[in-house]
Parts: sequence; C-alpha cells; structure tokens
Amino acid sequence: MPAARATAADAIVLPTWRDGSVRDAILSFVRSVTEPGPAFVPERDRIAAFDNDGTLWCERPVYVQADFVLRKWRAMVDADPSLAKRQPYKAVADDDREWLSTLTDHLPDLVRGVSEAFGGLTTEQFEAEAARFFREARHPTRGVPYTELVYTPMLELIRLLEASRFEVFICSAGGRDFVRAVCEDVYGIPRDRVIGSSAPVELREGSLVRTAGVEQPIDDGLGKPVHIWARTGRHPLFAAGNADGDIEMLAQARFALLVHHDDGDREQAYDTGSQRALAEAAARGWTVASMRDDFATVFGEAADR
Amino acid sequence: MPAARATAADAIVLPTWRDGSVRDAILSFVRSVTEPGPAFVPERDRIAAFDNDGTLWCERPVYVQADFVLRKWRAMVDADPSLAKRQPYKAVADDDREWLSTLTDHLPDLVRGVSEAFGGLTTEQFEAEAARFFREARHPTRGVPYTELVYTPMLELIRLLEASRFEVFICSAGGRDFVRAVCEDVYGIPRDRVIGSSAPVELREGSLVRTAGVEQPIDDGLGKPVHIWARTGRHPLFAAGNADGDIEMLAQARFALLVHHDDGDREQAYDTGSQRALAEAAARGWTVASMRDDFATVFGEAADR
Repeated sequence: MPAARATAADAIVLPTWRDGSVRDAILSFVRSVTEPGPAFVPERDRIAAFDNDGTLWCERPVYVQADFVLRKWRAMVDADPSLAKRQPYKAVADDDREWLSTLTDHLPDLVRGVSEAFGGLTTEQFEAEAARFFREARHPTRGVPYTELVYTPMLELIRLLEASRFEVFICSAGGRDFVRAVCEDVYGIPRDRVIGSSAPVELREGSLVRTAGVEQPIDDGLGKPVHIWARTGRHPLFAAGNADGDIEMLAQARFALLVHHDDGDREQAYDTGSQRALAEAAARGWTVASMRDDFATVFGEAADR
Repeated sequence: MPAARATAADAIVLPTWRDGSVRDAILSFVRSVTEPGPAFVPERDRIAAFDNDGTLWCERPVYVQADFVLRKWRAMVDADPSLAKRQPYKAVADDDREWLSTLTDHLPDLVRGVSEAFGGLTTEQFEAEAARFFREARHPTRGVPYTELVYTPMLELIRLLEASRFEVFICSAGGRDFVRAVCEDVYGIPRDRVIGSSAPVELREGSLVRTAGVEQPIDDGLGKPVHIWARTGRHPLFAAGNADGDIEMLAQARFALLVHHDDGDREQAYDTGSQRALAEAAARGWTVASMRDDFATVFGEAADR
C-alpha cells in the first residue's frame, strides 16, 4: 500500500476535523475500501447514508420541519379561529409549549394536522411553500436561516466520500420532499439522493398531489434499512446518524459514525433521544464523533459562537 | 448551432435504428436538450424512464416474471400435491393454460400465490432464486435465455441517453427486485436505477425479508409517475413504453416513445394491451417506433429469425 502517498493526500482532506482517532478511523476506512486490498469495495457498492436532523444540520431547540409545520398551523388558525377548538391548532393558539414539545406523543393529532395543512397540495405547491419557509424563517436562538446551520465537518465528509466514488444519500425520518427543496443548494446533494418519509402522493389529472396520512414505514428506525434497500437495492457501506432512530441503519453499515452532541458552547449538549444509540455504539464499536473534540469548527468559523 | 458536427456525430449513433422520422426525432430531441438553445435542459433534470416488459425485452408469449412464478408454483405443488386443491396451484397442476393466461384477472389468487411462493425470503434469497431462473430458464419458443431477448436498438438508445448525461431508470410494472437481479449484466443499468413493484419488505433480526401482499400503488398506470417522483423528485424528460400501463408515464415526458410490436417475422405482431396507448400516441403526437420499419435489427443480427 502506498502509505506515503495516502498520508500526503490525507493532509488536505477533512481540514475541519481535528487530528485524532475519529478522523483517522474515517480516513483509514475510506482508504481501505477504495485502494487495492482485502477490504476493497467496487464503486457500485459504495453507498453512504446520512441521517439529516442532528447529523447534517441543527435539530435544536426545534426540528426545522416542525417549525415549518407550526408556522403553517398558526397561519391556518389565524385565518380560521374556529380551528382552535381542537388539536393541534388549540396548542398553537394557546402557545402551549409543553403540548407542542411532545408533539410526537400526539401522533393522531400530528398526522391529521399535517394532512390538513398540506394534503391536496401538488408536489410543486408544497415545494414552493418549503422554499419560502427556508428563505424567510430564522433559527429561534441564532437568528440565521436554518440552512446556515449545517455542520461543516459533515459537509466535508460528504465531499470526501463523493470524491471516493461513494453514492451519498440523505436518509431522513423527516419529509423527503421538504429536504429536496434545499438539498442541492445546502448540501450539494442531488434531489434523487434524498430518502425520507412522505405523505402518499397520487396522480390526479396529470398532477402529483399529496394526500392524507403518512406512507408506512416512515424512514426511521426499522424503516431506514427498508427505504435504503427500496431506493438502492443495497445496504449502506457507510452510515452516519446521531439518534436512536438511526440504530438500525448504522447496524447495517460496515462503518458507522455516530455524531455526539456534546458541545454546549458552539452547539448544544444533549443525549435525549440518543442514549440507546450511544450504548449500541459502545457495544458494537461504532465510531463516535464528539462535536466538542473532533470538530475544529461546527458551522464554519464565523458562525460558531 | 454546429449542424455539420451534429450530423457527423449522428452518423455513428443509433446504428441499429433505420434512417427515418423516428430516428430523426430522437436525435433531434437529444440535441435540443443538450445543446445551447431554447429547449436546453440542465443535466440534473435529464431523467429518462423506460418501461421493461415489451419495451426493453420480449414479453411474449409469456411475461418473463410470470414464467419465474409459474416454475416456483410447479415446484411447490410437486413438493406438496395437496396444494392442487386450490388456485393458483390447481391451474398449474392441471396445466390449465386458459386460467393461467388470464392470471391478472384472478388477482387475489395471484397475490396470495406470490406471497406464499416468496414471502419470508430474505432479499438475498429472493435474488438468488431470480438469478438461478435467469441462468436456467429458456424462452418457450426461441429456446434461448430470456436475457438474450433484449431489443438491441433500445439498448443503443439507453447508451445514447447516458452519453448525453441523462439518468436512465427502468420503470417496470413487474418486480423491482426481480429486474435488479440482471439489470447490470443485461442493460448496463445500475440496480439503484430500477423502479418497480414490490412486496412489502421488513427488517427482521437484521435481515430484509419479503412479506405478503403488494405495495400500493404498483408501478403501473397511475402509479408510474408516483414511483418516478418518489425515486427522483422529478418528472421524466424522456419516457419509453409499449403498453396501456405506460400512458400516464409517457404523458408526463417531453419526449414520449411508444414501441409498436408490429413485426411478426422477427418478433411478434400484437396490439392487445396497447390499443389505448396507440390512440393516445396519435392524439398527442408521441413518437411511435415500428419494430418492423424502424429497427434494423431486433435482438442483434444472429438472433433475428
């Protein structure tokens, strides 16, 4: 193996990852599957899957898509105050943060509310609403567009994998068509590489229209490997996630990277929703990236506080 | 526009398409979307979708996948003759060709039979059975492997589109994972570019397992644009089909090609299942490729009879 050459090349990749065992493990894995040797993998089998919320962009204090939905519900209840008699609009009208912060515990209300908010829209109409949200909305504490809160080291990692002839997919529990509205601009990932959850879509008079409900399985937990298979016909070779819903996807990959939110200064420090994943990582030997220790920058130097 | 250069280039592309208005229309369309001008389309929006059965390979006298399923049912009823008390095994045991030739009219029996035949198999086991079928089975009248009965001019067309920076997808009403077993060898199309129908797949103890039933919508008729959207986030720019189930997909494309089976000497002459599509083609100005007049060869010279 041409070790000297590899080291010289390594010096210019992943510059926003700090030197250390995590960066070394990533570079060593990429070398092992791309250079001749026992671990070599042909290009066509190099599938990488990245979770989105909390893995590629900031998910706190609110999921980006949750803010999108809440703004729509607020507009709906402003236009028709009688909606406030029932959930989820009541919580929006009352600014009931406790109810809203546990939205996924009220699944029937959540699904009905999303169906009422976006059901009947064509895919183009939905995308236009999402694009407007991304232009206008600001992160509640940082005051910048959500699209600026992408983790620079993860973006570099995507570019490294692409340069190493991986096909890189986003595999989000959130909405497929929501992420597609910005994936090319924000991540440089083409929209056909976005895997995610979706309302059922139907063809009506030549247009694709969102209908009520959610397609099963959603792209989370057990559903992630199913969606990746449906889309690619393969298991992921490389996978990155940050939460318990990523465990099944990470377990399928030869290299599993778990992003740990432990940087209360530059981002946030929390383990809620990732405690099982952290335990699995320890048990299975997954690579855990500490945002505090392994990221030289989080959002790019100017944006880090 | 460098017309002379284009003409010189045209002389070496699509050599198995006869000179004529259909070949001209295809070449003219590809030039119009790839060269600077009012019809230019950026590479990332160049999506092409090809139906499979009857568009890329021979579908008569039996769908390739139907033969695969019938062979499995025969093996099942040989192993357990009590199955012959009920359909679809009774028709197999009795060699009831009339019942079997109208299999899609017996949808509950068909779906249950397919579920019993392949439900519970892992995706790897299913693919191994499909691969064995493709190695061993022979076309009933031509005596060659089904994989040799690919239309050479259509394969050339796929290569032309790929060279013109289209992403080419197979969009089959038949089984996604069945076609994936051979798409790379037979068509040179990577398996992540296969869209099709499927049994629901579940993750069980780390393995992806086929379950009973069929995911809705199947990848036919109204379902084709839905599947193409789910997979690519786009409408097809170019689409090719041969049957009524392709109408909705063809209607979405800027260039729609309908393959007409009118060559009783080299292939087969039939309009059954494509009469509505032929009428739509006439009404909407789609390009209709006559296998008799526009294909200089059908399966490659040695294979044409």
